[in-house]
Amino acid sequence: MTESPGQTAPAGESAAFEDEDYRRAVIDLLGAIAYGELTAFDRLAADATLAPSLEDKIAISQMACVEFGHLVQLRDRITELGADPSAAMAPFRVALDLFHAHTAPADWWEGLIKAHVGDGMAADFYREIAAYLDTRTRDLIVSSLEDAGQSDFVVDRVRAAIAADPRLGGRLALWGRRLMGEALTQAQRVAAEREALSALLAGGVDRPALDLAAIGRMFIRITERHAERMAVLGLDA
Amino acid sequence: MTESPGQTAPAGESAAFEDEDYRRAVIDLLGAIAYGELTAFDRLAADATLAPSLEDKIAISQMACVEFGHLVQLRDRITELGADPSAAMAPFRVALDLFHAHTAPADWWEGLIKAHVGDGMAADFYREIAAYLDTRTRDLIVSSLEDAGQSDFVVDRVRAAIAADPRLGGRLALWGRRLMGEALTQAQRVAAEREALSALLAGGVDRPALDLAAIGRMFIRITERHAERMAVLGLDA
Repeated sequence: MTESPGQTAPAGESAAFEDEDYRRAVIDLLGAIAYGELTAFDRLAADATLAPSLEDKIAISQMACVEFGHLVQLRDRITELGADPSAAMAPFRVALDLFHAHTAPADWWEGLIKAHVGDGMAADFYREIAAYLDTRTRDLIVSSLEDAGQSDFVVDRVRAAIAADPRLGGRLALWGRRLMGEALTQAQRVAAEREALSALLAGGVDRPALDLAAIGRMFIRITERHAERMAVLGLDA
Repeated sequence: MTESPGQTAPAGESAAFEDEDYRRAVIDLLGAIAYGELTAFDRLAADATLAPSLEDKIAISQMACVEFGHLVQLRDRITELGADPSAAMAPFRVALDLFHAHTAPADWWEGLIKAHVGDGMAADFYREIAAYLDTRTRDLIVSSLEDAGQSDFVVDRVRAAIAADPRLGGRLALWGRRLMGEALTQAQRVAAEREALSALLAGGVDRPALDLAAIGRMFIRITERHAERMAVLGLDA
């Protein structure tokens, strides 16, 4: 075990944390991502039970454990910032649980697409936000959102399945659009309800604000990346 | 990544592996334990969805990932021994899936007892067998069966719950007996069906046999340890 620098030296923190609003916003953001990782673990573990082979089951379970490893890092950082991880995650339970309830995969293929496309969208969104934060928070978020190995695995499996049954492509393309729509609905809910996060987007003394035009451009980039991921899978966005 | 010594130096293997029956028996045993770890991962991840708090949910999910880590080690060793991991696990799917189907926890508490008592029994059984094997196989099995942290967590949670509701103790004591009975049923099924494993128990040129008396004493020890675990939980065995 290496020593965690943050525990011994609060001085090692970015000056941005002297702003209490900033600290609260970062805790909010880490709480949202952490709960997202926990639900990703849940969902991938549930998807694993649908796997057509032991090899696929192990591959998906491994992804679940990678997501869980990210959660642990985020939880420890929330604690280091003086907050309770469960309390930090709690405000995001409704939105993320609703997202998952509304997008329960009907089969193995829908689960694969959700793992790849859903996590990809979430990662793009959080990375966009992270660009406005202190270096340490940004690095933690970026490493938490690293691909858990799903991309190659999912692309390989889905392309082969569509080649074998082209009708599957139509159904999965619709599924991808539904995931995008539901993600936007829940993201808007969170943005409307969480003042700390909204304040973050509004900027601070030493931080640039995300004006409406910037937010608009951000959503265009996220939508474009979603379309690219769908195209790699051989699906219309 | 460190180099795996087995891939470059089959000479590093115990001389016991020159006996093809021994090699097959070890692959069988590792396959059984590996599939057990995979089902443990599944089950703990499913139990996590029943957790009464985010803290409990994270604790159980962490155990699931520890079990998965063991599976990865076993899978890699099976590959190193020249076998296909999925094929090595396949013969044990029916018995282990039936065990889990017959002992699906009705609630969080039954899940906790199963994680603790079920895994404890399996670990005792495999450790007994491991004592008859070459050092490397024995070490791998023993490390794969290390407590994933469930003992302290489960003992703490279950004792507190029984103190708050003594009737829960009666129900969970019955549940513990059912787990033991079902485990014995499935263990007998495996012993009867898997010739390689039976041959292992029968010994070899340079290995002692487990005679019937030794097997009898082994089951007495496993039963005693089960009773001890139940007692620590405050439950009659």
